Amino acid sequence: MKTEILFYLVPLASLAALGFAWYFFKQMMRESEGTDLMKEIAQHVRSGAMAYLKQQYKVVVIVFVVLAIFFAILAYGFGVQNPWVPFAFLTGGFFSGLAGFIGMKTATYASARTANASIRSLNSGLRLAFRSGAVMGLVVVGLGLLDISLWYIVLDHFVEDISQSQKMVIITTTMLTFGMGASTQALFARVGGGIYTKAADVGADLVGKVEAGIPEDDPRNPATIADNVGDNVGDVAGMGADLYESYCGSILATAALGASAFYINPDMQIRAIFAPMLIAAVGIVLSIIGIFLVKTKEGAGMKELLRSLGVGVNVSSLLIALSTFAILYILGLENWVGISFSVVTGLIAGIIIGQSTEYYTSHSYKPTQRISESGKTGPATVIISGIGLGMVSTAIPVITIAAAIILSFLFAINFDVNNMLAAKNISYGLYGIGIAAVGMLSTLGITLATDAYGPIADNAGGNAQMSKLDPEVRKRTDTLDALGNTTAATGKGFAIGSAALTALALMASYLEEVKIGLVHIGQHTIDVAGRIVNVAEATIPDFMEYYQVTLMNPKVLVGVFLGSVMAFLFCGLTMNAVGRAAQKMVEEVRRQFREIAGILEGTGKPDYARCVEISTKGAQKEMLFPSILAIVAPIATGLIFGVSGVMGLLVGGLGTGFVLAVFLANAGGAWDNAKKYVEEGNFGGKGSECHKATVVGDTVGDPFKDTSGPSLNILIKLMSMVSIVMAGLTVAFSIL
Amino acid sequence: MKTEILFYLVPLASLAALGFAWYFFKQMMRESEGTDLMKEIAQHVRSGAMAYLKQQYKVVVIVFVVLAIFFAILAYGFGVQNPWVPFAFLTGGFFSGLAGFIGMKTATYASARTANASIRSLNSGLRLAFRSGAVMGLVVVGLGLLDISLWYIVLDHFVEDISQSQKMVIITTTMLTFGMGASTQALFARVGGGIYTKAADVGADLVGKVEAGIPEDDPRNPATIADNVGDNVGDVAGMGADLYESYCGSILATAALGASAFYINPDMQIRAIFAPMLIAAVGIVLSIIGIFLVKTKEGAGMKELLRSLGVGVNVSSLLIALSTFAILYILGLENWVGISFSVVTGLIAGIIIGQSTEYYTSHSYKPTQRISESGKTGPATVIISGIGLGMVSTAIPVITIAAAIILSFLFAINFDVNNMLAAKNISYGLYGIGIAAVGMLSTLGITLATDAYGPIADNAGGNAQMSKLDPEVRKRTDTLDALGNTTAATGKGFAIGSAALTALALMASYLEEVKIGLVHIGQHTIDVAGRIVNVAEATIPDFMEYYQVTLMNPKVLVGVFLGSVMAFLFCGLTMNAVGRAAQKMVEEVRRQFREIAGILEGTGKPDYARCVEISTKGAQKEMLFPSILAIVAPIATGLIFGVSGVMGLLVGGLGTGFVLAVFLANAGGAWDNAKKYVEEGNFGGKGSECHKATVVGDTVGDPFKDTSGPSLNILIKLMSMVSIVMAGLTVAFSIL
Repeated sequence: MKTEILFYLVPLASLAALGFAWYFFKQMMRESEGTDLMKEIAQHVRSGAMAYLKQQYKVVVIVFVVLAIFFAILAYGFGVQNPWVPFAFLTGGFFSGLAGFIGMKTATYASARTANASIRSLNSGLRLAFRSGAVMGLVVVGLGLLDISLWYIVLDHFVEDISQSQKMVIITTTMLTFGMGASTQALFARVGGGIYTKAADVGADLVGKVEAGIPEDDPRNPATIADNVGDNVGDVAGMGADLYESYCGSILATAALGASAFYINPDMQIRAIFAPMLIAAVGIVLSIIGIFLVKTKEGAGMKELLRSLGVGVNVSSLLIALSTFAILYILGLENWVGISFSVVTGLIAGIIIGQSTEYYTSHSYKPTQRISESGKTGPATVIISGIGLGMVSTAIPVITIAAAIILSFLFAINFDVNNMLAAKNISYGLYGIGIAAVGMLSTLGITLATDAYGPIADNAGGNAQMSKLDPEVRKRTDTLDALGNTTAATGKGFAIGSAALTALALMASYLEEVKIGLVHIGQHTIDVAGRIVNVAEATIPDFMEYYQVTLMNPKVLVGVFLGSVMAFLFCGLTMNAVGRAAQKMVEEVRRQFREIAGILEGTGKPDYARCVEISTKGAQKEMLFPSILAIVAPIATGLIFGVSGVMGLLVGGLGTGFVLAVFLANAGGAWDNAKKYVEEGNFGGKGSECHKATVVGDTVGDPFKDTSGPSLNILIKLMSMVSIVMAGLTVAFSIL
Repeated sequence: MKTEILFYLVPLASLAALGFAWYFFKQMMRESEGTDLMKEIAQHVRSGAMAYLKQQYKVVVIVFVVLAIFFAILAYGFGVQNPWVPFAFLTGGFFSGLAGFIGMKTATYASARTANASIRSLNSGLRLAFRSGAVMGLVVVGLGLLDISLWYIVLDHFVEDISQSQKMVIITTTMLTFGMGASTQALFARVGGGIYTKAADVGADLVGKVEAGIPEDDPRNPATIADNVGDNVGDVAGMGADLYESYCGSILATAALGASAFYINPDMQIRAIFAPMLIAAVGIVLSIIGIFLVKTKEGAGMKELLRSLGVGVNVSSLLIALSTFAILYILGLENWVGISFSVVTGLIAGIIIGQSTEYYTSHSYKPTQRISESGKTGPATVIISGIGLGMVSTAIPVITIAAAIILSFLFAINFDVNNMLAAKNISYGLYGIGIAAVGMLSTLGITLATDAYGPIADNAGGNAQMSKLDPEVRKRTDTLDALGNTTAATGKGFAIGSAALTALALMASYLEEVKIGLVHIGQHTIDVAGRIVNVAEATIPDFMEYYQVTLMNPKVLVGVFLGSVMAFLFCGLTMNAVGRAAQKMVEEVRRQFREIAGILEGTGKPDYARCVEISTKGAQKEMLFPSILAIVAPIATGLIFGVSGVMGLLVGGLGTGFVLAVFLANAGGAWDNAKKYVEEGNFGGKGSECHKATVVGDTVGDPFKDTSGPSLNILIKLMSMVSIVMAGLTVAFSIL
């Protein structure tokens, strides 16, 4: 049958992604790592990063084992859960960790090579760094689709049920729960990595740049290796795990929504399930094409570099938009034109968010320049104007996502506005929202490459500095690094936007799990508006009515408050964690400056390993509480306030967390570039009072943009995922 | 009839409040204003404040006229609104402005007198300042209840309708709309005043303390008068208008909910309407008693002073809790025991929030001390740790409010948990939440006195410094001022908590206006679950179902996002406004230092008036956009997304705005006191690097705690009020 054959494009695309990742990796490894000193420094960073990851995975494995046992008890002891859940959970975590690990491994091999390639030319440096970043991009999407394909094939073989439609619902909801494994591992990676990198960065900057007056990445600074390690464990491994989870989450949630929306028509149902997977598969192929398009010529400035990356991303996006219509037509999906437009809505929303992020955080534009200017009146005004800018900058992304929600919904129901809230339309519309998230993430293969490229270029700069290469080389790597700052900010906006749409789709899928949960505990009917409705056929509005998930239900309202406060509390905890860990780093660096003779003159050798250890320990210790809180909060809310409380929690967490995350990312990015703008010679340039003031802003922005902000994305989705996995527990045992 | 007679206690209590306010005012005016120099300085501040208020009211009057005309057109032209609305709107604004005006007038007369009384003894200073603050507290509650009583009497006389129950619904919902007048004026007062005071404060500190190294309130600083004026226009007039609006809003929303909950029993309905008014009336009398209990002895430290204020507040609270049971028993309200417990829940929640605010912001405790300590590593870590603390500090208040919501709901329905979401119980329960807000605000007469006392003591200190009084006097006023900082922080926590509960009650009342709106446009029935329901008798769950105000309705979800982003956008705009206005102030002060000869040696005279003018102009210019945005957003949302979109907006704005407001208030308060802790000689004391770092924190905290944070309270309620007033427009013309 045609539809079934199309499915095999999915594992094929995933293998293609992994194949090209392997090719780019081999290509990179063939390059020389440069002088012995360069190799030695790269080796330091590599072993620091690996040591960290080893330590981190040890902790994560314990958490996973505990949770898997807990799920097994729920499934086999109490029968309130699908028996596949513990396994799905474990594979999700494993693949997410693997994606981060490979990305990081590649990055640590690539940085010295990028520095060395930059000796040849800017173009060589760019290509090497970018293609190494592409390894991670392709590994993430490749492993994501591989995991999805494998589970689909396995479950399709093993699951037996009364009807084809029912079977598909079981398969898609089971697959959904592997998202929790991915989310959990991603949260640890983001929080742990984020604390690590910023403790090292803040510590290195405060003592090195501000107190001792030595430049960034100076080998005399004991924290400088830790800082470079941090870029890899936080910005590469953390981000990889994060986006792996977003990518799978959006595809799986959409598949589950499709299984439910087209329940009555098994033929259409299977097409609706395959649609997000096929769009993702096509996205991979077109991303690879885009990657090959990225190159630049010698002497290129920021604008040209941005343009050359832009060519790759834009060509991919355009091709994906066009192919979506083709693939959904071939698939024969009902209303394929409307659904295709939903996908395009997501793609365009992603581009708008990226553009607005660039506007607010690049120092080519007024807002960031104004922050630089406010440095003339000292650090306080830098902070006030940065926070003001960050808050104002939330408007465009959030309104864009709001517009994307309503438009992708309406496209999916053919603009049937008069009946937009009819049960059938709600299901179709939510499917449209989900597939918009898939559209936004379909370019992930290449967008993630532009993002992972940043820390590689950053580390290349560090390596060039520390191995005392020709200043011309450092200038080239600086150009690459500056570009990386902008792409990182754009990438973050994109990650947040997709997280918001995905979380929404997950909320809708949560109701599918509630359905399954009700059946598991032996409740096969619900009473809605005086009618008895079969649970398996209950629509979303039925559940809304049954649980009264309305805004006047106090359980929902309490949930909303708790969700909102979770976002702030979680942020505050991670922020404090960075503060504490950085303080320890500051003390250690000061101690070394004091106690190791000749360190500042370059004759004494700093103890890099000690700083690496402090960051590692700090991150491990500090990441546990906020991460466990994120898992416990939805369980506790569910047990006390039931399904309606959980829905409130998810909406509150999503609404507040989304806006807060945009705020943190943009304020942090703008501070970073405001400092760079001053360093380029504006308002007094390097060393002026204005510069010092903007350095304060940059330091404050570090945990904003690299720890708390990105962790929020995962928090939002993890809370949804936990709720999904715990739905059975909630429906069986909630108090109120 | 007994019930009707009880009502007259309400205007009587309001007159008692105004009488005692007059008495305290006269008592204060009998005191001497001190030396000629003291009088002159006080006169400067007074005329600056009056000039500002005059300018502000000019702008506000224009806005009011425009809006009133708009409402008149809606009411008389399109018939989508109650004909009383334009008038109710105007009186609300008028009384709110009047309360702020009287409070401010009193404060500007009281500060020099407090300084002068402090020459005699600490106790004299405290009593004078506190009783002057009490003028404002009593004027706010007195005018509030007066306005409510008058409108009730007028409407009771004029409104005619088919049934007694129907009449009461019309009366209460009409009265509710005068809340929008109060909110609108309060928003302008808070935003304008907040920008004014912080532009002056930040400007004065940055150039005076940091650059020129002269002490706070030094007469050589040209911005010092503007700074003192700011305390009055922002912290007194702004706060008075704010709490006037909270106070009335909570009473009126509860009355409207009572009218709806007890619709089928006219006899009980009137009792439910009178209950919140009577609790407020009793609260006034007991607050007056509490005010008389506040005194201290010479040589008292912070602890004793706090205790003496605490005695007043706690005795009042305890008496109010007890009297509530008595008054509701006498009133013969159904389930009077349960409802009384709802009131007590609100009272206790207020106290817990106050305590947690004190814990997080007072430098007697670890959290603030840790911020001081982080100053050792510079301003960046001060900012990071302050933001971390502020975010973490949101947990207790928000969880407290969440608990208060669920408990006051359950008390009001006699813990009928199994049927908690039955239509009748939803109405009763929401009434319980409303009356919990009334309980929390019932002590307002005295808690507002402790709050308004702060700026008076602050100004007294300024006056003592500028008129070169004995340092011993300045030390006394400093003690009073430090106390004021703590009470101000507690007061803010309290204002935010009550705003959250009130906003929730207003959201429920919004549905009452939707009902009226439907009738106004000629729609008398709605179709719910296949049944035809009479609009006038439709319950809250009916409306939830009719408009599908569920969390899976995309219009609700879009509303939630828009509400969340409104909170951040509004904050960012006000934050930027302070930044810009402060920058102008900094430039002006620097100019004067440069151009006016001998200014720093004390021989040249600074141009105070110019600084006052800059703050005034800056505030006027900057307050318009955010304020108008707050009015336009709910109207636009309603016109596009209808009732369900508006409900989403309100919940999103409430969830995010509430948490954000707590964060801003606590971070700001903690930074302020962290600086004071260093100034008391810790971590290097005054003039150390650590001190400089904490001054940066304090400066950043200024707009947090005195501009953006408190304005958010009003934003939350104003958006609800606007929605209420525009309900008719929304039901008649919304697109989706």
